[in-house]
Amino acid sequence: MIDTPYLLFLGDAPDPLAAKVAQGIRDWRPDNAVGQFRMAGCLADMKLPDMSLAEARAAGAKTLVIGVANRGGLISPAWKKVLIEALEEGFDLASGLHNLLREEPDLKAVAEATGRQLHDVRVPSVKYPIANGEKRTGKRCLAIGTDCSVGKMYTALAMDLEMKARGMKSNFRATGQTGILITGNGVPLDAVVADFMAGSIEWLTPDNDADHWDMIEGQGSLFHVSYSGVTMALVHGGQPDALILCHEPTRTHMRGLPGYKLPSLEDLRDIGLRLAQVANPACTVVGISINSQQMGEAEAADYCAKVEARMGLPCVDPFRHGAARLVDALAAV
Amino acid sequence: MIDTPYLLFLGDAPDPLAAKVAQGIRDWRPDNAVGQFRMAGCLADMKLPDMSLAEARAAGAKTLVIGVANRGGLISPAWKKVLIEALEEGFDLASGLHNLLREEPDLKAVAEATGRQLHDVRVPSVKYPIANGEKRTGKRCLAIGTDCSVGKMYTALAMDLEMKARGMKSNFRATGQTGILITGNGVPLDAVVADFMAGSIEWLTPDNDADHWDMIEGQGSLFHVSYSGVTMALVHGGQPDALILCHEPTRTHMRGLPGYKLPSLEDLRDIGLRLAQVANPACTVVGISINSQQMGEAEAADYCAKVEARMGLPCVDPFRHGAARLVDALAAV
Repeated sequence: MIDTPYLLFLGDAPDPLAAKVAQGIRDWRPDNAVGQFRMAGCLADMKLPDMSLAEARAAGAKTLVIGVANRGGLISPAWKKVLIEALEEGFDLASGLHNLLREEPDLKAVAEATGRQLHDVRVPSVKYPIANGEKRTGKRCLAIGTDCSVGKMYTALAMDLEMKARGMKSNFRATGQTGILITGNGVPLDAVVADFMAGSIEWLTPDNDADHWDMIEGQGSLFHVSYSGVTMALVHGGQPDALILCHEPTRTHMRGLPGYKLPSLEDLRDIGLRLAQVANPACTVVGISINSQQMGEAEAADYCAKVEARMGLPCVDPFRHGAARLVDALAAV
Repeated sequence: MIDTPYLLFLGDAPDPLAAKVAQGIRDWRPDNAVGQFRMAGCLADMKLPDMSLAEARAAGAKTLVIGVANRGGLISPAWKKVLIEALEEGFDLASGLHNLLREEPDLKAVAEATGRQLHDVRVPSVKYPIANGEKRTGKRCLAIGTDCSVGKMYTALAMDLEMKARGMKSNFRATGQTGILITGNGVPLDAVVADFMAGSIEWLTPDNDADHWDMIEGQGSLFHVSYSGVTMALVHGGQPDALILCHEPTRTHMRGLPGYKLPSLEDLRDIGLRLAQVANPACTVVGISINSQQMGEAEAADYCAKVEARMGLPCVDPFRHGAARLVDALAAV
């Protein structure tokens, strides 16, 4: 659990894309960010107030989040002075970089001396149980994809926001580094030891109110041979009541696997649903989310309409068309 | 890689069942064991020569394998004197216990002083890659089960032995602690970090002769919600050409999951094959292995005959009937 709100550290970001994590926090949890900290030469801008460390503390910020990545996921020497000052000013630090905060002797020493926390969200900080498969109260929705990186996190976050706007009870449940930094907690599933994967997802989505939805962030794909085991643990540990199918129509092969074609949405529906019903026989597929960023406006609308007619399920690009129709479908479950 | 042959340490085993690991080595790799070491009160007997440490060294033994488990998987204080003497006599030590050899300060100190190895096969000793899904030469067979603990390891070992007897090229590829100790190497898959599961199985079953079979030890079940992610990594990382379906007909629910019924063999065939064909479109289901230990002789024969007629695949209990018909089916692939 990372203390909020944050000051977003953009460092010396060479371009806006390098600040993807900060952008995710800005887009999805603006209340979590009181301001941004930029060094000389920073080319990213979250359109938040630029603050010194002292100003951010005065505004209530509790954690400095490294919202930027450089090549290799390293903690740049240029950042060190700011990070050490932040610890001394009373900030905790949080990072999703491969290079762990706790592996930097100077940061570790100052954090210990000042009693501050170093949150490395790439590595689990919890001893997860082995899954017991027991039925939990409350409802759960999981986005599964024909491939990796087709918009599963975006879909869950957009639906969560729409549900909150309608006054529905909902929590986005993060299972990856960016999602964990956005919300302040979650399970870094790809770093969990095999035997405890499904148990970590049961732990993440415990008993809840009967009308509460956990919107679980998906990972990988049942059809991606490198990561399918991780996806399977989500399908069974998450015990979903509802599945959303996610797809990027212009992909010519599975991400990182040139020899592998994408499955059809029908294949994803049939296999995903059959496997999900092992853990929850009542599970249904409620909608389809298309990542149409490589398509024009008319082409995207036409594609979604055709898929909707073919599959008999609401089909939208939540970025273009909003998540309302997907939430309508969920509300009807 | 654990140096063979072994001296099997049976310690003060309170009953034969406690020496399950030693029994596995004795049954499947008798050439790997030159003798057994028993302490006062030991109630297990592998029918191997009882040897002192010096006698076993003279007979060529290189590693003392802890072939016994006590309650809690602990390294008993009563064993320590023997284990330390073994290191001093020039033995490496190997163990699959939860309590790691390397976590015992006295063993660690003596091993360092004598230059001997401590093999804790519960934890990975290799930095595995992320799976790349590239097609490998040679052939691979994987046993998948309707549940955990239905005889997948036994089936693969029995087929491997039959194939060797026929002069076929074959390797049993261990993915669990007992299998690793039996063969001297393998991947402790349940302890591998999620992102590297499938890659560890690619690493375990590399390119080989076109007529060589890797007989991959199965784990868990696609239908067991606690461990299905591990099984999925085997199905995709193993890239099997052939699947064997394993089943225990008297099981009333999934192991450890009272609320979960077992899937049918038809379900296992359909889902298992569809998922395996993602990694290897040529994969086929070649036979069925029944664990009939809870049935009488006639009942078992009748059950296998009925399943064979229903499924159109050779169906045997390899323990009762031998693995010959399963190997015939594999040889025809």
